[in-house]
Amino acid sequence: MRDVHASAPEGRGQLLRRVGVSTIRKPLSIQRKDRVVTLTATFRVAVDLPASRKGSDLSRNAELLAEVIDATALRPAASLESVCVGIATDLLSRHSYATEAEVDATAEYFLSRGISEGRQSLEDYLLVAQARAVRNGAEPPQIFRAIGAEAVGMTACPCAMETARTLLTEEFPLLNDPALAKLPIVSHNQRNRTRLTFELPPGADIEADAIIDAIESAQSSPTYAILKRRDEATVVINAHRNPKFVEDVVRDLLNEVLRRFPELPDAARVRVETTSEESIHKYDVSASHAATLGELRSTAA
Amino acid sequence: MRDVHASAPEGRGQLLRRVGVSTIRKPLSIQRKDRVVTLTATFRVAVDLPASRKGSDLSRNAELLAEVIDATALRPAASLESVCVGIATDLLSRHSYATEAEVDATAEYFLSRGISEGRQSLEDYLLVAQARAVRNGAEPPQIFRAIGAEAVGMTACPCAMETARTLLTEEFPLLNDPALAKLPIVSHNQRNRTRLTFELPPGADIEADAIIDAIESAQSSPTYAILKRRDEATVVINAHRNPKFVEDVVRDLLNEVLRRFPELPDAARVRVETTSEESIHKYDVSASHAATLGELRSTAA
Amino acid sequence: MRDVHASAPEGRGQLLRRVGVSTIRKPLSIQRKDRVVTLTATFRVAVDLPASRKGSDLSRNAELLAEVIDATALRPAASLESVCVGIATDLLSRHSYATEAEVDATAEYFLSRGISEGRQSLEDYLLVAQARAVRNGAEPPQIFRAIGAEAVGMTACPCAMETARTLLTEEFPLLNDPALAKLPIVSHNQRNRTRLTFELPPGADIEADAIIDAIESAQSSPTYAILKRRDEATVVINAHRNPKFVEDVVRDLLNEVLRRFPELPDAARVRVETTSEESIHKYDVSASHAATLGELRSTAA
Amino acid sequence: MRDVHASAPEGRGQLLRRVGVSTIRKPLSIQRKDRVVTLTATFRVAVDLPASRKGSDLSRNAELLAEVIDATALRPAASLESVCVGIATDLLSRHSYATEAEVDATAEYFLSRGISEGRQSLEDYLLVAQARAVRNGAEPPQIFRAIGAEAVGMTACPCAMETARTLLTEEFPLLNDPALAKLPIVSHNQRNRTRLTFELPPGADIEADAIIDAIESAQSSPTYAILKRRDEATVVINAHRNPKFVEDVVRDLLNEVLRRFPELPDAARVRVETTSEESIHKYDVSASHAATLGELRSTAA
Repeated sequence: MRDVHASAPEGRGQLLRRVGVSTIRKPLSIQRKDRVVTLTATFRVAVDLPASRKGSDLSRNAELLAEVIDATALRPAASLESVCVGIATDLLSRHSYATEAEVDATAEYFLSRGISEGRQSLEDYLLVAQARAVRNGAEPPQIFRAIGAEAVGMTACPCAMETARTLLTEEFPLLNDPALAKLPIVSHNQRNRTRLTFELPPGADIEADAIIDAIESAQSSPTYAILKRRDEATVVINAHRNPKFVEDVVRDLLNEVLRRFPELPDAARVRVETTSEESIHKYDVSASHAATLGELRSTAA
Repeated sequence: MRDVHASAPEGRGQLLRRVGVSTIRKPLSIQRKDRVVTLTATFRVAVDLPASRKGSDLSRNAELLAEVIDATALRPAASLESVCVGIATDLLSRHSYATEAEVDATAEYFLSRGISEGRQSLEDYLLVAQARAVRNGAEPPQIFRAIGAEAVGMTACPCAMETARTLLTEEFPLLNDPALAKLPIVSHNQRNRTRLTFELPPGADIEADAIIDAIESAQSSPTYAILKRRDEATVVINAHRNPKFVEDVVRDLLNEVLRRFPELPDAARVRVETTSEESIHKYDVSASHAATLGELRSTAA
Repeated sequence: MRDVHASAPEGRGQLLRRVGVSTIRKPLSIQRKDRVVTLTATFRVAVDLPASRKGSDLSRNAELLAEVIDATALRPAASLESVCVGIATDLLSRHSYATEAEVDATAEYFLSRGISEGRQSLEDYLLVAQARAVRNGAEPPQIFRAIGAEAVGMTACPCAMETARTLLTEEFPLLNDPALAKLPIVSHNQRNRTRLTFELPPGADIEADAIIDAIESAQSSPTYAILKRRDEATVVINAHRNPKFVEDVVRDLLNEVLRRFPELPDAARVRVETTSEESIHKYDVSASHAATLGELRSTAA
Repeated sequence: MRDVHASAPEGRGQLLRRVGVSTIRKPLSIQRKDRVVTLTATFRVAVDLPASRKGSDLSRNAELLAEVIDATALRPAASLESVCVGIATDLLSRHSYATEAEVDATAEYFLSRGISEGRQSLEDYLLVAQARAVRNGAEPPQIFRAIGAEAVGMTACPCAMETARTLLTEEFPLLNDPALAKLPIVSHNQRNRTRLTFELPPGADIEADAIIDAIESAQSSPTYAILKRRDEATVVINAHRNPKFVEDVVRDLLNEVLRRFPELPDAARVRVETTSEESIHKYDVSASHAATLGELRSTAA
């Protein structure tokens, strides 16, 4: 039987940057400090393909994913990102004609959170991880890693609040009383979805839970599944005491990253993307930025 | 060539309720009072299939859709619903073995709306329509029609507002001053998506624009693409003066239907479905009800 | 603090059929024969609301879901469907004003499958479950349950195959040779998504894995993550020896249900919905049917 | 009233790369050779924000979009891409603090296509366009443009076909007869979604319809809404005479670009992304490449 993949292309050859499989779903076991959790991840894996070769051996990708996933059932992996690194490394050794292998994964992730001790429940987040392995002659491949998370929280708009204060003061002059200077005023508020991702140089590391904590600290308020009546009002009041544009969410999160992760090297690169599903519009507003920690540190100084 | 579809099934025959095509996208021209609009509709069409027949002639469905759509380019249709009625009737005559034909369509729809004359823009809504034709011996088929629309607006929560008033009054006793009795108090607010659908007996009719007006009247506030600063605050204040649970949205919309459409017969059936994308939770809350106008009128009396 | 939910509606009251929360995601532990699996389910829960009451206590729904889910961490549930029954029953006792409670859940589910012993991998399916509890005076509530699953497989078209045989025979008269009578001929083939659901009377029961087996037996072929070259060709050849319209998938699955589950009572109700993502069209074709086993048994006799 | 957006950020300032609105839907009129078509586009628009400023004036974005769209109702735009260029240029003049403005748009697009003259129907495609305006001192801004399209067609797998030929020849030795050497053999086939995008230097131009033609020429076969029986078999046979890996689709499309658009300058950059929704797997396979025409021309030489 002729090896169709290994044959030469019919027409003029062209190097292809990425050939692979996507939308593969796999459950895998991850070791957290105190427990093993099951994540169901969506993988995309790809390698490059030289101009001299017609096809990539895609069945190897699915086999490799199955082996790696099966292995975590016996010995839980350290993190979604370490699973990606393992797969990228193995891909490169199985596709001998490739010079690069890339693996992306996203997985829903639950943490027990609550507004108080007695109101804990599982809140859902998203983990994202990426690994890229680049062939390096006879040396082990160079590995590039990214790790991130996404959290849904709440933003209240500072501008509508300021304008509403002005309009309401025209109608209720008592609002001018200094005793009401700090009264939270109505504004529009809405779900905000924020993603924070790090590209890490070798040796640097960061915990998914710490990424999620940082994101939630930069929104107007985290949100919770279980809220009794006073809790609801408390979340609402807190969010209106901490109003945020999407611009504020990005800027504050960049500054939180500097404050919370001083040990990360200047070469680490951070990306923030945030979207508020505006309650007063049918469309979303969003903001994003990407920079190395070195760049952020020099700007912030 | 053997007619595979018309042959008998291989195993034991079974009547099949619905066989058809779905996710077909087609642009079509609709005549509104003052203009022709282009809607891009997603169609699902189906007929039933007797136990004696292996397959339905599905290519006829696609041909028929193409003909009907082409015809609207020359002579715009009266409404999405009239297009569905035409297709259902023709399906029944082309599938001689069928006893029923059903057509569903949804289409994005734009109306010029604004908080004031100078702030108009196109807001997007969804139209839904359905027609079912049932064979009736030698008589023309019986036709059943449904027409509806979906609008995204805003709800502010009455319960969190009441609790926030209590908590804030503890901190700001001046809120007890009767001059502030009507001051809008912070609450969570969010996008609300509401769908209103009518199943209409023969002869009864209703305009899509009137359905959209009714929905927007039952939310805490409509929402707009263009809002300058004072407009934003006005929408926010209006919504907080008109706080609504999802339960209120359904109930108020049912009552609006009775008030706005007195000419609709008791046999007309109405369905309301509403979802608020809660800003303080990661999940949605929703409410729905369906009843004949006769039932609603007797309850409401 | 006034109980806003328990107060009377502002306008004319209207009974509401369903009020609840939706899109709640929760991981839960399920006991299978030989292992505990973690499912991440999406829940929708709702109760009805009398005309005299403004709102439903929605925070109770989230609390209850959290408690039930936490309990499965200590003691895995028997099935997704039994979790739904437990939640529906508890909802009714916590919402004393409600007469009905309804719970829907869907969850991704993995089974180890393969074309041969050495080619096993985790294939993903969808589980669906529903429970409805109806108040019954002083008696325990009446419980209605539904359980189902969805599987993606493959269909090859019998009609295009027959026509291709005719056209190819004109070009290759040797195809008339009786030795080639059973040669599989090219046709279009594609992903087929089929859902099979049972509404079960009290006492009747059915395993999710058996539902999935039944679905895969009615498609042209199951599909697999890991296929080496000969396996790929084997799946392709098998599918073309077993060509199916969507009509065949529904009909054959209804007949498989009769054959595989003879112990299910006549009152059990079965629903089949199937969609083929046609490779030769940009749209899908689909077929569906719903009937009691009693009705199917009498038709099939 | 204080201008909240123009005030300084509360904490340490940070430059933000992109601040804007997304998921805005707008219908717009486009002039084609022989007719005016209505496209409904989804826009994302963004500008950058200096570290000294708290917020971007997002309401200007929505106003500008409304004005541009309204203008096309009176005077249809030349293309989706020219609309994006107009919006990006205007954004930069309205956001005086910004140094860059970026606009992305996607829109469903219909073309009349068919396997023969008498079988025409509207097939749906996707248009994509992007414009970026970069401030350039007192000069007009520099403009960067991208234009592309996406088409769904069909691929048949060359590898499974080759293996199936081997397996079937073992069973049907008559397949060794030279008269059957060119008989198309069964393989898996499926929907393939391919996107081709060009980044164009000033002066270069390309028609959306020509992009779609190029894509369809690189798939195993285009697909059609209306196919009578012989047409279905013809499409199937053609696709199996033209089997393609995703790798072939990318490579062949890159070569088609060189052949079809010789007038495009070396500096133009092309990107191809293709995904086949494998009928024998539950996951997709995909391939992509991006290069300048100069790079492709030198490789291909």
